[in-house]
Amino acid sequence: MNANPKFIAATAAVDAAAVQPLPKSRKVYVTGSRPDLRVPMREIAQSDTPSALGTEKNPPLSVYDTSGPYTDPDVKIDIRSGLAPLRAGWIGERGDSEELAGPSSRYGVDRLSDPRLAELRFHLERLPRRAKAGMNVSQMHYARRGIVTPEMEFIAIRENQRAAEFTEMLRRQHPGHSFGANLPQLITPEFVRDEVARGRAIIPANINHPEIEPMIIGRNFLVKINANIGNSAVSSSIGEEVEKMTWAIRWGADTVMDLSTGKHIHETREWILRNAPVPIGTVPIYQALEKVDGKAEELSWEIFRDTLIEQAEQGVDYFTIHAGVRLPFIPLTARRMTGIVSRGGSIMAKWCLAHHRESFLYEHFEDICRIMQAYDVSFSLGDGLRPGSIYDANDEAQMAELKTLGELTQVAWKHDVQVMIEGPGHVPLHLIKHNMDEQLRLCHEAPFYTLGPLTTDIAPGYDHITSAIGAAMIGWYGTAMLCYVTPKEHLGLPNKKDVKDGIMAYKVAAHAADLAKGHPGAQLRDNALSKARFEFRWEDQFNLGLDPDTAKDFHDETLPKDSMKTAHFCSMCGPHFCSMKITQDVRDYAQRQGLGEAEALRRGMQEKSIEFVQRGGNVYLPS
Amino acid sequence: MNANPKFIAATAAVDAAAVQPLPKSRKVYVTGSRPDLRVPMREIAQSDTPSALGTEKNPPLSVYDTSGPYTDPDVKIDIRSGLAPLRAGWIGERGDSEELAGPSSRYGVDRLSDPRLAELRFHLERLPRRAKAGMNVSQMHYARRGIVTPEMEFIAIRENQRAAEFTEMLRRQHPGHSFGANLPQLITPEFVRDEVARGRAIIPANINHPEIEPMIIGRNFLVKINANIGNSAVSSSIGEEVEKMTWAIRWGADTVMDLSTGKHIHETREWILRNAPVPIGTVPIYQALEKVDGKAEELSWEIFRDTLIEQAEQGVDYFTIHAGVRLPFIPLTARRMTGIVSRGGSIMAKWCLAHHRESFLYEHFEDICRIMQAYDVSFSLGDGLRPGSIYDANDEAQMAELKTLGELTQVAWKHDVQVMIEGPGHVPLHLIKHNMDEQLRLCHEAPFYTLGPLTTDIAPGYDHITSAIGAAMIGWYGTAMLCYVTPKEHLGLPNKKDVKDGIMAYKVAAHAADLAKGHPGAQLRDNALSKARFEFRWEDQFNLGLDPDTAKDFHDETLPKDSMKTAHFCSMCGPHFCSMKITQDVRDYAQRQGLGEAEALRRGMQEKSIEFVQRGGNVYLPS
Repeated sequence: MNANPKFIAATAAVDAAAVQPLPKSRKVYVTGSRPDLRVPMREIAQSDTPSALGTEKNPPLSVYDTSGPYTDPDVKIDIRSGLAPLRAGWIGERGDSEELAGPSSRYGVDRLSDPRLAELRFHLERLPRRAKAGMNVSQMHYARRGIVTPEMEFIAIRENQRAAEFTEMLRRQHPGHSFGANLPQLITPEFVRDEVARGRAIIPANINHPEIEPMIIGRNFLVKINANIGNSAVSSSIGEEVEKMTWAIRWGADTVMDLSTGKHIHETREWILRNAPVPIGTVPIYQALEKVDGKAEELSWEIFRDTLIEQAEQGVDYFTIHAGVRLPFIPLTARRMTGIVSRGGSIMAKWCLAHHRESFLYEHFEDICRIMQAYDVSFSLGDGLRPGSIYDANDEAQMAELKTLGELTQVAWKHDVQVMIEGPGHVPLHLIKHNMDEQLRLCHEAPFYTLGPLTTDIAPGYDHITSAIGAAMIGWYGTAMLCYVTPKEHLGLPNKKDVKDGIMAYKVAAHAADLAKGHPGAQLRDNALSKARFEFRWEDQFNLGLDPDTAKDFHDETLPKDSMKTAHFCSMCGPHFCSMKITQDVRDYAQRQGLGEAEALRRGMQEKSIEFVQRGGNVYLPS
Repeated sequence: MNANPKFIAATAAVDAAAVQPLPKSRKVYVTGSRPDLRVPMREIAQSDTPSALGTEKNPPLSVYDTSGPYTDPDVKIDIRSGLAPLRAGWIGERGDSEELAGPSSRYGVDRLSDPRLAELRFHLERLPRRAKAGMNVSQMHYARRGIVTPEMEFIAIRENQRAAEFTEMLRRQHPGHSFGANLPQLITPEFVRDEVARGRAIIPANINHPEIEPMIIGRNFLVKINANIGNSAVSSSIGEEVEKMTWAIRWGADTVMDLSTGKHIHETREWILRNAPVPIGTVPIYQALEKVDGKAEELSWEIFRDTLIEQAEQGVDYFTIHAGVRLPFIPLTARRMTGIVSRGGSIMAKWCLAHHRESFLYEHFEDICRIMQAYDVSFSLGDGLRPGSIYDANDEAQMAELKTLGELTQVAWKHDVQVMIEGPGHVPLHLIKHNMDEQLRLCHEAPFYTLGPLTTDIAPGYDHITSAIGAAMIGWYGTAMLCYVTPKEHLGLPNKKDVKDGIMAYKVAAHAADLAKGHPGAQLRDNALSKARFEFRWEDQFNLGLDPDTAKDFHDETLPKDSMKTAHFCSMCGPHFCSMKITQDVRDYAQRQGLGEAEALRRGMQEKSIEFVQRGGNVYLPS
């Protein structure tokens, strides 16, 4: 490849940063019903319980792993070659799609034949695929015909995360104790199929993105998070965007949206897709607008259609399409505090006003469905009229659009096209539930995908937190995927640190929601970490957490010495005040008595209090 | 004062950092019914709406100000002299307390007469006060006798934050618009009195802490936040703790707890109290334990009693007392994942086990009440058995203790002693509401004061976020004060950055709760900020936010040039994609037509669409 040396230098940095496994973690694969169905997981090793507390083996914990082959030391990563096409065989053997001679969009052809782009271009040898005439290649189409695809089986294994095996190990070790809670109920491939068939979940998986490790978005599965990346006219380069993507999945992004609006949108996207093991979403109207030099009124169905095909043939897994921004709703925004804050929504509003016509996205919605089903691109029906401030939350404009999105959902389902619905925005706590309930009702249980919501407007610089609060709550109420917000929201473009901060806030929100929803096995990680904390297994506590690096750095700021990592106290209280240690005394006492019941213990203590004092009231370690 | 030069150097740093007002903010005072009743507020100036958007004056916004005299340039700050005793006159004129000849605790006398402490000691010339024999100086006592104290009037003015005046100004400016929402209902001094009399709110205000600006903790008022500071055996100095206190109130801490456990607890506390315009809380058992060299079993009622008097005479406003950790409850913790995680709780558990006796805090609870009422120290009844992990949430031990705290509340109220109840801890989202409901039921609506709760255990390094989620929710459900959690929770002692990060997360949570509860005027700040955002008044957006410094820094990372501060677009979208700008087009259009109603607009557009295009579809600023 004749690539720009500056660009290569930028991508070389990706490799080094993203290829290291997290501490004490190793990549494991669970093989399904066929040898090419290997589901990746991250297995976190734990150390033994210290002898003073009973010397137990602590089994390794498997956790959901979005990081892809980057954290597998056995896989050679080369950004210039892209990832292996994991799903290529599955797609091929279905026999319902065919290779094209090349891009079938006008724009795709133009870009490929432009010699000035040679040095920016990703060198893909594979040809784009499309459904054969009259065929529908969507996962929903298969699901409705009763077919369990390899993607569905992959997802069932992935969602379960070996929770049953881990619980079984705990049970064997602690026969008298319920640390592992009950044996989690398993998610079956058939359940996955059924949820997709009903439209309650989607599997974003374009046949031109065979590199992805399949995942599912639906409220009866783990809550997912999306990270937005993308350059703008003002800043950022292709290399930086690829690096942000690998960085985002390392920390847990389940999907990534490329929201680039600057130069070379097409080429940036190709690099991202070829290196992305997670589904990639876009907002095609952004690129369409670039094609008409930013003049919204010059947009047309033809330009938009060509853009959809261009991106579908690159492999984009879901499209945000603001087809609910209808002409009659636009005046409803005139009295808002912050009007229309969605970029796509405002572009379409401008077009509608300029032409005084109904939106071409709305009018051509069935044409769009026919494109989506030929590549299995999922809809993410955009909330172009979402509220941009607490003042505008749940207003007439928002609700009018939501109702329209529900109608469009039924149109898409008629074509067996997968749909999720985007949601707000800025919403105070007491109005969040109503959003969720109305979405389920009006959109017939299609998965909800929300931005936050931000629960107050007054904290620029902290909107990852204002929105993580709303995200946790709406996730618990039933939102299937949470679009992250970074600390830079409203202020600037996120850098790598901001991307990680946003992801961490949203992993917290998603997991808090999973716990509250009672997802099978979600609490095993909390239990394992808390047990490690209680037993002063500091390294295990760090490694079981969402961000081992930060946890360790924070600990080391106060107690840097290595010996302190096994200390039976910590910097917060010092050795004399360690409540964990005192609890251990209570537990030791109970154990020595061989008494299981509280009442018996109460009686036992009455007799044994003298002995307790004699054995040495001060059980603290010598400091 | 013969002070240690090293110590003075440390405190000098405080002055410089904490004395600067926030950008475009000035301290204003609203005078009440008497000239010495001056309620401080922070007034944030706003710039005018740019002429392109209509040239309006935007009135200055008053916000609740916890920062005390430090941000008033007219007040000379000298840490070594302490703050002016604002309430001294009010306390004196009530005639129900008297000056003592000196400290009446044994320990207080010892410390004062120890020449080795001379250089560490704060030089206070005032003598401690105590209720006259047979008198009760608590705000609850006055409230129940129908007396509206100056403290109560101060609080009513403070809680209202001139919201009515601001709304009135907005109304005059925007007669056709409801940006200011409805005129907020006012909180009256009589309402404050009534809430305190019922026990639904407390005013922590020790007569020996006349420096405080009175504030209230109750669920029918603004949600408050507490910041913990304090050194431990392992690190930190007196100077650093005073600096953390001034730093914490600068960013919005409503009360500060001094949880020091290291050397010089007594002297550290004195420095903090004399410089604190907010109520200070402590956990007296920590110091009592230091007095017996960390040997919990050597604690006794006599040592504890002396500690209470020592601290009450210094001016501590509320005491955390773990009187609900009763002997029969301790065995209930033996099967927990993380046992007893409260330091105070575990100290008492150890004492109870060692002696096999009921807790002396429980047995001497009425004696404690008699001390509290003589100085007006409020109870913060500690949740010594709070859950330390998701696994242990809402278990039998926790609920048994909560019930006991409710019983003790009624004992305290019999003595007209103010009470709030501490709450968990680690609680998953779906169990939070039950905590709140049970607290209200079992504790007879005494204010709830919760630590978080943390909604998952898996994010060490991000527990300010895991807990801000729970805090916002429980605040909405009715918790009156939220104890902050910093990113260092479980890992180490917070530094200044951690303190600020924790406070910001909790200001967000508290404000989100205020919005959801519909506190009068809470949304005015959101509205003002969103209007500034919509009108591209960047500086106003920063200044109206919780942390102007961080917001400005984040913005400047991408768009550093000064001219960009008035740019009508921002770095996220670039000039072609600015949705705010497009919305302005919609609004301009509506205004030009002079049409108020959506339907009329719809008709109008049909006729005027050609004109819209002619006027120039591209309304973006030249880039």
